[in-house]
Amino acid sequence: MRILITGAAGFLGQRLARRLLSNPDLQHLTLADLTPPPIPDSGSDSDSRVTSLAADLTRPTASKDLVSADITAVYHLAAVVSGQAEANFDLGMAVNCDGTRHLLEAVRHQAPGAKFIFASSLAVFGGDLPAVITDDTAVQPQSSYGTEKAICELWVNDYTRKGFIDGRVLRLPTVCVRPGKPNAAASSFASGIIREPLQAETAICPVDPKLSLWLSSPTAVVNNLIHALTLSADQFTYSRTLNLPGITVTVESMIDALEAVAGKAVTSHIRYQPDPAISNIVASWPSQFDVERAIALGFERDRTFQDIIRSFIAETDIAS
Amino acid sequence: MRILITGAAGFLGQRLARRLLSNPDLQHLTLADLTPPPIPDSGSDSDSRVTSLAADLTRPTASKDLVSADITAVYHLAAVVSGQAEANFDLGMAVNCDGTRHLLEAVRHQAPGAKFIFASSLAVFGGDLPAVITDDTAVQPQSSYGTEKAICELWVNDYTRKGFIDGRVLRLPTVCVRPGKPNAAASSFASGIIREPLQAETAICPVDPKLSLWLSSPTAVVNNLIHALTLSADQFTYSRTLNLPGITVTVESMIDALEAVAGKAVTSHIRYQPDPAISNIVASWPSQFDVERAIALGFERDRTFQDIIRSFIAETDIAS
Repeated sequence: MRILITGAAGFLGQRLARRLLSNPDLQHLTLADLTPPPIPDSGSDSDSRVTSLAADLTRPTASKDLVSADITAVYHLAAVVSGQAEANFDLGMAVNCDGTRHLLEAVRHQAPGAKFIFASSLAVFGGDLPAVITDDTAVQPQSSYGTEKAICELWVNDYTRKGFIDGRVLRLPTVCVRPGKPNAAASSFASGIIREPLQAETAICPVDPKLSLWLSSPTAVVNNLIHALTLSADQFTYSRTLNLPGITVTVESMIDALEAVAGKAVTSHIRYQPDPAISNIVASWPSQFDVERAIALGFERDRTFQDIIRSFIAETDIAS
Repeated sequence: MRILITGAAGFLGQRLARRLLSNPDLQHLTLADLTPPPIPDSGSDSDSRVTSLAADLTRPTASKDLVSADITAVYHLAAVVSGQAEANFDLGMAVNCDGTRHLLEAVRHQAPGAKFIFASSLAVFGGDLPAVITDDTAVQPQSSYGTEKAICELWVNDYTRKGFIDGRVLRLPTVCVRPGKPNAAASSFASGIIREPLQAETAICPVDPKLSLWLSSPTAVVNNLIHALTLSADQFTYSRTLNLPGITVTVESMIDALEAVAGKAVTSHIRYQPDPAISNIVASWPSQFDVERAIALGFERDRTFQDIIRSFIAETDIAS
């Protein structure tokens, strides 16, 4: 396995890199991001299997330089997040549409047939939605981020159909709990209302607590990214696009779970301060999915939100 | 009304131009295509209301030059057709994706809020389809043409949501009977098997006669393009994308209708010669639609295929 990860300086990219480095079949790993990504600790100070590079995917030559002929798979995680893509339309189009297309072209011409695992999002959905989303629900994005992800899904499928790549599109639920700092994703608060109170810091809840979310733990998402690599092309039919499993929770029930796990003193750090810009985007996303197809293909699902919180606390303790 | 039509040298573009020129509210019409489009006969040799221009939309400057600040609507009909987009992937991407994006950018920056009527296609559908297609059926294109149209639909919707344009996406059925010569569209035969026999010429039927098609006459399509201009923004909700009305016919029933209208001597000019390249594309398209929403918005539908043939004969006689 010779693998490229874009957006590899990000939280998921780093976790994915760490997991891939623990695989004895890995021969080489290229980590790319706007600045050279850290090489995750794999038991030594450096790792001869890893190359870390700076690359701006909006420049076609950057993708060309990243994709070597012997590459077997690309994880394309690099993206401008939802809040930023909404605030800066041109940046979102350049990174999320053009950047993906340049990378697809580089794989097509320099490593034809390589696996191409694209991280899409539940943000492709919006508008008048059925009660339960399936892989056959029409996308009707109500954000530029969702639009750009939906466009890349179409490209990945057509490049696959033409035999240029061997694509897999995984629509990620909102990932929660993310460690670290808040980011410009409209869903950033979903991690913030758990992470900040656990560190005795104030967190803002910008949405109605009755709002339902579709969540996955980072562990389940990374396991599912790894699993996507093991699927063979003949396990797909007309479409390479899958809704990844998640769990449906209201914001209120997330806070109840936090209280059950960590106590009332912790949840008292949450302030309710509605933000229409964030609410409008997040409330347009669905929260109920039928992911039978993904489960049948072996993708995994979290059990409860309390479990997710406990894992986050355990991992944070390990890291500290 | 100051209107721009791209792809205006094409058959639909010429018909649309003729119709717009008969509207007393029309102040100016720009016709653009790869070569300067003919100015349709409007009762005089020239028409001071019309400018005819050559423009290659794959060059961003070409779109900039076409879109003047006082334009009120754009009909974007220019496209590489399905067979050609499948045979030349890069050309399809350049014209159908990049060309549309350049035009959207030009309207956004030079005539913000102008109406943008985009001719999409039933080719966005494919794969595992429900028995009846609605506006909420997921697109799963099985051709590069369908992929490119689906991508532009997403852009037109997002540019509309952002207030850059006032978009309307009309998914056209297969247009039949087209006059003139066969073209590189996979659906070209649908007109050919009617048009050529009526002129005592041999026509090839490359598909199974049991295949069902979703058709609209040129008259109904042009009426519906005109109608789209009259709708106000508040007649739409989350999506600007509509499946236009059509009729469902099998190839066999089309030939029966031709025989009923024109006799057995005419249909004897049809030869059956299966072509997998054409069959694979056309058979991936759906033929049963629920177009209740379009009908409620005032879009029109043909009555019978025999009527369509009779209109074609009458128009051809008028033109000859």
